[in-house]
Amino acid sequence: MDAVLRQSRAMCPFLKRASPATLRALSTSTRPQVSPCGGTISKLQLLGQRCPVMGKALAIQSARVGRTGTVGTASVAGLRNYSGQSKGAKAKIHTSRHNEARAVENPVLNAQYPPPTIPVNRASAATVPSGTPSNASSKFDYDGFYQAELDKKHKDKSYRYFNNINRLAKEFPRAHGANKAERVTVWCSNDYLGMGKNEQVLKAMHETLDEYGAGAGGTRNISGHNKHAVELEATLADLHAKEAALVFSSCYVANDATLATLGSKMPDCVILSDSLNHASMIQGIRHSGTKKIVFKHNDLEDLEAKLASLPLHVPKIIAFESVYSMCGSIGPIEAICDLADKYGAITFLDEVHAVGMYGPRGAGVAEHLDYEAHQQGRPRGTIMDRVDIITGTLGKAYGCVGGYIAGTAKLVDMIRSLAPGFIFTTSLPPATMAGARAAIEYQMNYNGDRRLQQLHTRAVKEALDARDIPVIPNPSHIVPILVGNAELAKQASDMLLNDYQIYVQSINYPTVPVGQERLRITPTPGHTREYRDQLVQAVDEIWSKLGIRRTSEWAAEGGFIGVGETTNGKNTEQPLWTDAQLCIDHQVAREIRAQVPAAGFMETLLDRETRESSAGAVSTSA
Amino acid sequence: MDAVLRQSRAMCPFLKRASPATLRALSTSTRPQVSPCGGTISKLQLLGQRCPVMGKALAIQSARVGRTGTVGTASVAGLRNYSGQSKGAKAKIHTSRHNEARAVENPVLNAQYPPPTIPVNRASAATVPSGTPSNASSKFDYDGFYQAELDKKHKDKSYRYFNNINRLAKEFPRAHGANKAERVTVWCSNDYLGMGKNEQVLKAMHETLDEYGAGAGGTRNISGHNKHAVELEATLADLHAKEAALVFSSCYVANDATLATLGSKMPDCVILSDSLNHASMIQGIRHSGTKKIVFKHNDLEDLEAKLASLPLHVPKIIAFESVYSMCGSIGPIEAICDLADKYGAITFLDEVHAVGMYGPRGAGVAEHLDYEAHQQGRPRGTIMDRVDIITGTLGKAYGCVGGYIAGTAKLVDMIRSLAPGFIFTTSLPPATMAGARAAIEYQMNYNGDRRLQQLHTRAVKEALDARDIPVIPNPSHIVPILVGNAELAKQASDMLLNDYQIYVQSINYPTVPVGQERLRITPTPGHTREYRDQLVQAVDEIWSKLGIRRTSEWAAEGGFIGVGETTNGKNTEQPLWTDAQLCIDHQVAREIRAQVPAAGFMETLLDRETRESSAGAVSTSA
Repeated sequence: MDAVLRQSRAMCPFLKRASPATLRALSTSTRPQVSPCGGTISKLQLLGQRCPVMGKALAIQSARVGRTGTVGTASVAGLRNYSGQSKGAKAKIHTSRHNEARAVENPVLNAQYPPPTIPVNRASAATVPSGTPSNASSKFDYDGFYQAELDKKHKDKSYRYFNNINRLAKEFPRAHGANKAERVTVWCSNDYLGMGKNEQVLKAMHETLDEYGAGAGGTRNISGHNKHAVELEATLADLHAKEAALVFSSCYVANDATLATLGSKMPDCVILSDSLNHASMIQGIRHSGTKKIVFKHNDLEDLEAKLASLPLHVPKIIAFESVYSMCGSIGPIEAICDLADKYGAITFLDEVHAVGMYGPRGAGVAEHLDYEAHQQGRPRGTIMDRVDIITGTLGKAYGCVGGYIAGTAKLVDMIRSLAPGFIFTTSLPPATMAGARAAIEYQMNYNGDRRLQQLHTRAVKEALDARDIPVIPNPSHIVPILVGNAELAKQASDMLLNDYQIYVQSINYPTVPVGQERLRITPTPGHTREYRDQLVQAVDEIWSKLGIRRTSEWAAEGGFIGVGETTNGKNTEQPLWTDAQLCIDHQVAREIRAQVPAAGFMETLLDRETRESSAGAVSTSA
Repeated sequence: MDAVLRQSRAMCPFLKRASPATLRALSTSTRPQVSPCGGTISKLQLLGQRCPVMGKALAIQSARVGRTGTVGTASVAGLRNYSGQSKGAKAKIHTSRHNEARAVENPVLNAQYPPPTIPVNRASAATVPSGTPSNASSKFDYDGFYQAELDKKHKDKSYRYFNNINRLAKEFPRAHGANKAERVTVWCSNDYLGMGKNEQVLKAMHETLDEYGAGAGGTRNISGHNKHAVELEATLADLHAKEAALVFSSCYVANDATLATLGSKMPDCVILSDSLNHASMIQGIRHSGTKKIVFKHNDLEDLEAKLASLPLHVPKIIAFESVYSMCGSIGPIEAICDLADKYGAITFLDEVHAVGMYGPRGAGVAEHLDYEAHQQGRPRGTIMDRVDIITGTLGKAYGCVGGYIAGTAKLVDMIRSLAPGFIFTTSLPPATMAGARAAIEYQMNYNGDRRLQQLHTRAVKEALDARDIPVIPNPSHIVPILVGNAELAKQASDMLLNDYQIYVQSINYPTVPVGQERLRITPTPGHTREYRDQLVQAVDEIWSKLGIRRTSEWAAEGGFIGVGETTNGKNTEQPLWTDAQLCIDHQVAREIRAQVPAAGFMETLLDRETRESSAGAVSTSA
């Protein structure tokens, strides 16, 4: 027996690591419930059932023992019982032949299951089918299980209450609630540029609806492929200066399907994933079933160490984002491309929160980093050109719905040919695709919306900063206000809505870690001074009423996730859009700075700009 | 050593089953390429690397050996080497300490990987980073890999060529191709009832577009929840007589997210899945990571045997469809509900191809089975009432896009709260939700479209049958014509399109098994006699030109998947919509049968009905 145990420990990573005392404790302690087979199950056996090797062995053993037999009691568990030497087990084979035959057909067997862990349904227990002893078991209580899961969400304050918000195209950025007569100002939509109410987008959609109807009528392969798909994909390929693009139901599906397909198809593929990646990428990596290595958020040293530990010839995907939507941080795209080149990896860049918002043509942060080259139509050799796979959405800055990938023709054709999430689903409606294309082309040719969005973002950040409201510093268009407590965040959001008619959803776990709860504010070109003043005033009052910590308080505690960590507690991170790119005149800026306090700079600049040119690039609509 | 081997064989299901001769062959044969570490790898080692236990063991061993060491040559492989007795391996620990430390942090290690299995990229091989011996390895050739995957698709004839088909709302069921002036008749769309061009649907969409804009602007939790979602979900719950409903981007996502969430959350859940289930359910089950048991298509005996082999208390989901879209067969819903009750399972019914099409209010096959009760507004105790989870689409008979689930309030709230595929994606646009709701309500109050669709289906099946064209018999609205060969199916589809301006996509592997390739025809209320005659004539000519087998030929060979298997080779399966439900007057039917040959019955009936009432229930539009 000692030899067997030694051998088992040499084989099994779990047994190897567990101390003899732990193993003894696990193998002698039993679960309170009686097993369905009448015996007791040790905790070690329970662990064994979850092991890919021992689970199967235990199942086969249970099949041999048959329904009437008992699972062997505590020991160093199945290991010994599965040696095949047990006469008792062998003797049962012939007395339960039918069961065994079925057992081979079905991989899932009786004794593999622990007894129910949540209360069984008393009502349905009365309907136990004949032939089963009534005391052996009861049916699973599905309703009880659903309720238990919901109770958990209530208990940890992660249960979500949806707000009924109806954004009005003609009163952007205002909406009505459940009552159509009431008005609220929406400060947390991802329709960042107001393209959802853009005249050209709506015109394209109305015309396409009339000509081609409401829906596509089929999958891309079966009657759902049309000129709208062809044209939209050509526009997207052009936008990102790639050979091809492919449209999906959403970017959630695009990320999930693309990573799952690449990861599962490329032999021994490893996916290196930024720790703050979006759920869609995390799911795609999980669904690929391949190896995943998480690297610290935007940490190039950590990423390089992990890349260097892998053989050069192994296929690797570095999956990351350009703008991380909940904190507004920006991925180091160029440096990641350098690492990818060095270590033979490909780059998978999610530009979901950046397309339409950055770059001279709105192609995203990768384009923005070579602003002049792209402005002059010279994409070759740029950072965007080096990124292998870009994914984006049609549902945020472009104001519609849907998602896509862009890359080489071969890559796109392979995903088109292999990804179930692309193949087996109805195409987006023609009008949706036509509207999205109109939005992309509009933004390719006009950068006034995203410029004004950036100016408004600066103004909001500046004003909140002046009131000691803790904005998590970042170089992007996201304005995350730190609350740091789930209940307070929800209370603040509810008060904004009910007392100030301002809608800002609170962001709680699991979207952000516990303790980092926040209000996430997204200014648009339509959030003019009146709205900004209302917002800042309301937030300031609520912070006082609820006693939520201000920047100076975080600073006094040493700061937290960037808040109160910089010099004098000010947010000093440089915005991605430079003053020059925003066409802020140096001379004008100097004049204003000489006249007004720092906190009033942006509003003064915007006032002056509005006065000087009532039309043109500064206008909120085309 | 013998004891170790014996023990290993007792532990490992693979070693147990492999014969000594096989093991010897595997352990002495090596791969042609040299391993990255300079040694050779036996095929058995290669298999070991894929084993969940041995893979880890080998990785740890490799880390100890370090990069400069060699992987032990062929033997009964890692088993022996991993006993921890090798002095060589131990000695290396200290000479490669840094590598080892990194290795522990990263679970993925150098020597775990076999050398590349497809040619490496010669160009990129030149850019091997300094410090790596140039002969050790080259970067993975991603383009070569994509091309190899595409070559496979071309080789097995499963590569898909999309047809550019633009369905014209005002000329339904006609479309234009790439050239806007040309016309084709679409015979394979899933816009079964022409709701994509329905006036009330389009009106709702135009109005909503103008009032609420193009997109939802956020996830359901963050500014994307609105009255359109609330109303649509209420309508869906009403349609299926359930407490609640939840809308997703598509029914692909609804099936995937719901099954993945239930399967992963319920302890030890087992999902029993019909062998012909749609890809979305198969993916959902895979993504749940739980146990799956496939039962034979519509085989109650097989399903019951599998249910009976599971303990009563274990949670079980029976996942199946009402109408299987590629063959038109219909699931035995009531009997499956009975089995679910008996064995403590819940039912998950995909009504994607049935909603809008069956039942007095268009709720699907489950509703159709209690036609009168539902017509009289008495849903309690019906089969539909007994089904736990119904899933459906807004993109087929309802003419828009999107999917949903319907069930108890608790179930729906749990999926709403836990499913990433629901939580982390942009909501459907308000106009899409409003259009879908208009379509559902229209079909709830008017059954003329689905009635006429069924009459047209009968007419097409009857006419094809009369020409000895092999329709796979089924009781539903699907008309699958058996070809039985991938190339012939594509040729027939291409000839229909190019020579006859008729669009019917060929259905090849992997959508149907190899050898069962078919043309899948879907009649609509708009496919009137003129179109039917064109179709049948064209198919008949093509069958002759290409020498595709006819029903009598399949019958002569003993029949195949229902074709030529019934008496006299006729399709005798009774349609789900009875003559009475279709309001076919017995007296009229008897008169027609006395006058025309059997093959002309449906056309004569339809002619007569059209003449008798030029408006009303028979009209193709409202």
